Amino acid sequence: RGLELQLGSSTQTSHRLLAYSDALLSIIATVMILPVAHTKIHPDQKLGESVQQLLLAKIAVYLMTFLIVTVAWAAHVRLFQVIELIDDVLALLNLACMMIITFLPYTFSLMASFPEVPFGIFLFSVCAVVIGLIQALIVVYGFYHPHLLNQQIQVSENQSFYKRHILKIILRGPVLCFLAAIFSFFFIPLSYVLLGLVIVFPHLTRFITWCKTKIVGQRDEEEEHRSLESFTFYLSEPLSKERVEAFSDGVYAIVATLLILDICEDNVPDPREVEEKFHGSLLEALSEYGPNYLAYFGSFVTIGLLWFVHHSLFLYLTRATRLMGLLNILSLAFIGGLPLAYQLTSEFAEKSHNEIEAIQVSCVITFFASIFQFAIWTTALLHERETLHPFARYGGKEHAFMFAKLALYPCVSLGAFFLTCLLSEFSTAIFHLMQIVIPFAFLALRIFVRISLTVMK
Amino acid sequence: RGLELQLGSSTQTSHRLLAYSDALLSIIATVMILPVAHTKIHPDQKLGESVQQLLLAKIAVYLMTFLIVTVAWAAHVRLFQVIELIDDVLALLNLACMMIITFLPYTFSLMASFPEVPFGIFLFSVCAVVIGLIQALIVVYGFYHPHLLNQQIQVSENQSFYKRHILKIILRGPVLCFLAAIFSFFFIPLSYVLLGLVIVFPHLTRFITWCKTKIVGQRDEEEEHRSLESFTFYLSEPLSKERVEAFSDGVYAIVATLLILDICEDNVPDPREVEEKFHGSLLEALSEYGPNYLAYFGSFVTIGLLWFVHHSLFLYLTRATRLMGLLNILSLAFIGGLPLAYQLTSEFAEKSHNEIEAIQVSCVITFFASIFQFAIWTTALLHERETLHPFARYGGKEHAFMFAKLALYPCVSLGAFFLTCLLSEFSTAIFHLMQIVIPFAFLALRIFVRISLTVMK
Repeated sequence: RGLELQLGSSTQTSHRLLAYSDALLSIIATVMILPVAHTKIHPDQKLGESVQQLLLAKIAVYLMTFLIVTVAWAAHVRLFQVIELIDDVLALLNLACMMIITFLPYTFSLMASFPEVPFGIFLFSVCAVVIGLIQALIVVYGFYHPHLLNQQIQVSENQSFYKRHILKIILRGPVLCFLAAIFSFFFIPLSYVLLGLVIVFPHLTRFITWCKTKIVGQRDEEEEHRSLESFTFYLSEPLSKERVEAFSDGVYAIVATLLILDICEDNVPDPREVEEKFHGSLLEALSEYGPNYLAYFGSFVTIGLLWFVHHSLFLYLTRATRLMGLLNILSLAFIGGLPLAYQLTSEFAEKSHNEIEAIQVSCVITFFASIFQFAIWTTALLHERETLHPFARYGGKEHAFMFAKLALYPCVSLGAFFLTCLLSEFSTAIFHLMQIVIPFAFLALRIFVRISLTVMK
Repeated sequence: RGLELQLGSSTQTSHRLLAYSDALLSIIATVMILPVAHTKIHPDQKLGESVQQLLLAKIAVYLMTFLIVTVAWAAHVRLFQVIELIDDVLALLNLACMMIITFLPYTFSLMASFPEVPFGIFLFSVCAVVIGLIQALIVVYGFYHPHLLNQQIQVSENQSFYKRHILKIILRGPVLCFLAAIFSFFFIPLSYVLLGLVIVFPHLTRFITWCKTKIVGQRDEEEEHRSLESFTFYLSEPLSKERVEAFSDGVYAIVATLLILDICEDNVPDPREVEEKFHGSLLEALSEYGPNYLAYFGSFVTIGLLWFVHHSLFLYLTRATRLMGLLNILSLAFIGGLPLAYQLTSEFAEKSHNEIEAIQVSCVITFFASIFQFAIWTTALLHERETLHPFARYGGKEHAFMFAKLALYPCVSLGAFFLTCLLSEFSTAIFHLMQIVIPFAFLALRIFVRISLTVMK
């Protein structure tokens, strides 16, 4: 507590500012699933056609928004790894930056509705450039008041190198967007390519470096590393685990909450209808919504337990590398798709033709959300000394249980997918059974793993 | 980090579980403003009538949900002040508890639509009783595994007293709800009174105690306090400041994000309309939405700056008493009303009759949100030795600046309210000017306060 104000009255730790930014960014990334989930699908219509006609553009908007916002989030994380303390000016600049970021989903909606018109892409690019300029201003302000910087940089002799390096990282995206804005008036496809580059660029450069070291051999990389060690040691550090957790929590929380909003808006019967159709019996009217309640509880349980697995996993991680951050974001993108799964499975009551498709879409979303979590675990095991707590490493006393926890959802969702193919008549029953049984499976798992370990010994 | 796992493999610190719960609870409390904000008001209709006809029930649902969820949140805070470490079982129990809490808004929607039918109130009460039972189960589990408890209680000899005391606090609400459930079938008004009691009960008992000590004199209270000191020392502690901040951040973040959702759903023009009405010019079509963009930026700036004031205020608070917690929740309830203000002010383009009313509603919401923040500050000043950082106390070097920061929004919104009454023709211009000028006012304030302090010396 004392630390918060130690450096003078106007200097503050950035902890709460970052938590608020994480909450904003995670909600803004996820909330664009709502227009997707709210797309009305007529019960007589085949789901396959509807997806092509209605959903494809909206899903593209959702995914693009999600990925672009995570790029902005990653830049924000790196920025505030360099600047560790804030003052009022930085807080206000950061809020201005957030305001422009929350405007990005709207520019995507425009792009999706008018893919041929340059204005949508131009507006997006301008926003991205403004975000970059504000972030650059934050960097410049930070280096002008060095007591706000990270300790390591403060004592370093190469502050100006650090400044240039972090500016390069932050302005990389905006420069690409600036080019996209110019080209949008001449040749739109090139603009789209440039925007795609913004998303994949950080990963592309890392991948190329990785390939190079594999081909040329590791010595070169090590030499290069050593010569730059004094400069880049801090900048090549992995993502802050705390912020990865905060961002993930935001996504899980908003997805869980969007579900109840749907229930409240759609499943409160009209008083007049109750009077006429059900002779004033509310209970009878509500029993019509039975499948919706079941779908709600099922979806909430799925989200809650996936959060639980994520929580257990990150408890045993000691640091989050860049690759793990990427896998986490892919997992979260599918978590964000769960409201769509809820919307599809809650329509069972209307006896549409799409029962099996809806269940299979849900299984696929759950499978990918959980398999990417499993991939984080696998990646962590590859470098277990640096990334895992001793308990969770090979032979640690929690290793088997963690493995079982992480494998449960991928296995069950895959199993449910194939079972619905084989026993298509019981698909609904299988799906709901799966959702209700799993929480108990988590408790049973602990006992099971303990017994099997004892038996093996 | 080491602390997280020090007590055995399955015991964990509760930090992330609490952050996730705070996010869920704050979002669920606030999200019920969406049905209110989305109520369509016909431009020809007078706002006064619409409010009476359409909005009143929905606003009541929003306020009731908000207050009930904050009661559940306060119980959750106190519960996890006693239980400081968690394991898998507690994490799953907590998730189950959250699931029932997210279902509460739906029961309120039912109650608002069918005030005469006992089923809505019955369903709500059942949910509240189940929540109470799960929380009681968490307490029992915690006391059965004492290593999970707060240090102070762990070493205390009166564990069973603590257990009874915390159970009493947690089950107070559910018992009232249980009575409400029974009476709902005989005499509904009594049920509503009982539910109202759940919200005001904690504050009522404190108020009565306070009155008693004022009338009887302070000696009695002190004596009583001394005799119970060994027992209740920990339980009478103020709310955890960290969790008050986390809950507030969640509310601010979701309110800021709901705004862009509205923009994305309502203000993307239809491609066919653009072709027919604007001869394919997207820019012309978008210029129709100018007032919406202005309203969006205005609302976002208001929320951002109110967060900024909240952030500055809590930076200088060293602890949050129960009264400050109550004032904070009242402030947040009005913050949650800002999407309604946005929705009203963004309709200016249609030249409705409601321009002035819309602006005045916005001013009133902003005024109450900010005046309750100011009240927190005033309350803190009354006991400044216990609650404020030395810098912010009377005579501290940040005192004048904090005062100015907190007084800015109440003054400006009150001023705008009366100006619109006098100069009703320029009301829109005044309102937008106010929203745009304020961020610069915050920066100017610092300079102004510094100069005036120098002059005074």
